[in-house]
Amino acid sequence: MNGSMTLADAFKNSKYPVVGHGKRNVQVLLEAFEGTDGNASSDMYGKGETIERFQTKMAAYLGKPESVFFPSGTMAQQIALRIHCDETGKRKVAYHPLSHLELHEEDGLKELHRIETVLLADHDRLIRPADVRQLADDVACLLLELPQREIGGQLPPYAELEEISAYCRSRGIRMHLDGARLFEILPYYGKSAAELCTLFDSVYVSFYKGLGGIAGAILAGNAALAERSKIWKRRHGGDLISLYPYIISSDYYFDLRIGKMEQYYKEAMALAELYNDCGDAIRTVPSVPVSNMFHVHADLPKEALESVLSSVCETTGVGLSTWVKGLDDGGSAYEVSIGDRYADIPAERLREAFALLREKLQEGGYRAQ
Amino acid sequence: MNGSMTLADAFKNSKYPVVGHGKRNVQVLLEAFEGTDGNASSDMYGKGETIERFQTKMAAYLGKPESVFFPSGTMAQQIALRIHCDETGKRKVAYHPLSHLELHEEDGLKELHRIETVLLADHDRLIRPADVRQLADDVACLLLELPQREIGGQLPPYAELEEISAYCRSRGIRMHLDGARLFEILPYYGKSAAELCTLFDSVYVSFYKGLGGIAGAILAGNAALAERSKIWKRRHGGDLISLYPYIISSDYYFDLRIGKMEQYYKEAMALAELYNDCGDAIRTVPSVPVSNMFHVHADLPKEALESVLSSVCETTGVGLSTWVKGLDDGGSAYEVSIGDRYADIPAERLREAFALLREKLQEGGYRAQ
Repeated sequence: MNGSMTLADAFKNSKYPVVGHGKRNVQVLLEAFEGTDGNASSDMYGKGETIERFQTKMAAYLGKPESVFFPSGTMAQQIALRIHCDETGKRKVAYHPLSHLELHEEDGLKELHRIETVLLADHDRLIRPADVRQLADDVACLLLELPQREIGGQLPPYAELEEISAYCRSRGIRMHLDGARLFEILPYYGKSAAELCTLFDSVYVSFYKGLGGIAGAILAGNAALAERSKIWKRRHGGDLISLYPYIISSDYYFDLRIGKMEQYYKEAMALAELYNDCGDAIRTVPSVPVSNMFHVHADLPKEALESVLSSVCETTGVGLSTWVKGLDDGGSAYEVSIGDRYADIPAERLREAFALLREKLQEGGYRAQ
Repeated sequence: MNGSMTLADAFKNSKYPVVGHGKRNVQVLLEAFEGTDGNASSDMYGKGETIERFQTKMAAYLGKPESVFFPSGTMAQQIALRIHCDETGKRKVAYHPLSHLELHEEDGLKELHRIETVLLADHDRLIRPADVRQLADDVACLLLELPQREIGGQLPPYAELEEISAYCRSRGIRMHLDGARLFEILPYYGKSAAELCTLFDSVYVSFYKGLGGIAGAILAGNAALAERSKIWKRRHGGDLISLYPYIISSDYYFDLRIGKMEQYYKEAMALAELYNDCGDAIRTVPSVPVSNMFHVHADLPKEALESVLSSVCETTGVGLSTWVKGLDDGGSAYEVSIGDRYADIPAERLREAFALLREKLQEGGYRAQ
């Protein structure tokens, strides 16, 4: 049997899946619409009470004058950067080499908007003030992703954010926040979203990461940006006659889970401790999580780690991950995001699972290179 | 009171609204998902059974090797034209001056894809073979919208379509079908969708016009076009983690209403006759509908027609339109699309309404200029 299939199947059948809120299935929609008034009108091409009320609510939450609902973050962020370029008369933006725009969007920003990119920092570390000070003045906007997902969800100290923002503003460089996981980092910084967003000229947030909605995004900023973004939304083909399936569900899951971010964060710290207590062959990045997420890095090859995780899952019922990816150095890794499921796992089952994980890693004789 | 508000309100409260399927409200979603299995998995970024099964079904229906689901026709059509340009190495496409791309998309095709456009025919007539024969060979693709919505939903004879298609193919010009209302015209042509689509290299269809779904579109063509369109869908920000709210509802309303297109077409013909029997001041375009839609043109100014329609609506309970637009020549017009509602109106009520409409138009002394 194929190792990866085995792990995915084992996870699927596990009694105690550790990550996420639940299955991504139609029930997510049915729950959000249970009890919804069928007479509520659809939004119509970006207008109407359903969409306008939610945009007002999110603008207030993010502390910006206006916000606009988008089907996706890919669309919202390209458009934000395009507007910053157009308004400043520049054609370059700067971001991390592992930014979503660089890895997962088929170069939409370059292909559709002809915007050049400047990559700051490195594959294994955050953008720091020293990186930002190297930027030339022909950069329209710096995009910061908080937390930096592809390196385990790391965050700079808040003082560095303030320093970066102040520097950029002094040089006429706009600041855009990729806040795909903004809600999830607020407990660590101990700031409100509005407070953090004062450091940025525009901000995007997502409703299907920590909040667990179906899909959808909000782009917030000043009134001019909001108006221009609606024109670009139409151009991108995102100004649908009806976005309410995403709006109503986003609103529902926002209300349901926005108050649980501190809980997820603390649970992620507790879970990371369990991983970091399993011997030298396995560790979390960051070592102490700063949100509901972290990455697990192991010195085992992908197939070996899959086999270990499958075995732990089948024996204890605890599903630690549904997938593993191989790394260039011969090791392997996976991502952990804490959601509603974690709280349902009896502590005893978790202890058993990690005792077995530790044992199996030691049996295998794996250790740090 | 504002005349337009009055008409919209009168229509909203009318016992017998004549146009459409029903209100665009959340009930449209609730109905589509009633009885849906909550355990059905979401599609995941364009993959999974829900999306693949529907794409296969629509490809078969349209007689094309493959089809791809999109959030919107705006996105699907720009992408189809871009691919035709890239594959032929040309940068121009041709379409009608009242095409959706020219009127309603904020120039997305030009702004995002830098494609030049050649406008064929005129504001008051269809593209004919003689227009197409004027095209230079530097045109990648001819887009035909069937029916041509902005001129009342007119159609050329089928033989002209065949002639245009054969000519374009002989000159290396691709053919794209804007089939936003394709389902609605099949009874007139007496053709299957697959048969008609053989004249085109790519075709877009919509699920919220005659079918009355929430939103969503299909782009169909050969395998290379389908694959390329998925990359562009990602670039546009349309490759959502979950499109199932639109897919499941599109599938539901396709099955519910695809067999009713002949009925809507016949009802549109009957209703147009009633309009054309109301004296010289009012008429339908086309005079005999070729689908479920037509436009009503009147020699009255917008405000006067609104007042007449409001009065008919309040007196007889029959809502003929919710809006009227003023025309440059001082007259006015509105669009009629037949859906499920029409069949529910007692014939006697309709006769009363049109008798009153005729009377009011004559009282007003309106006549053709």
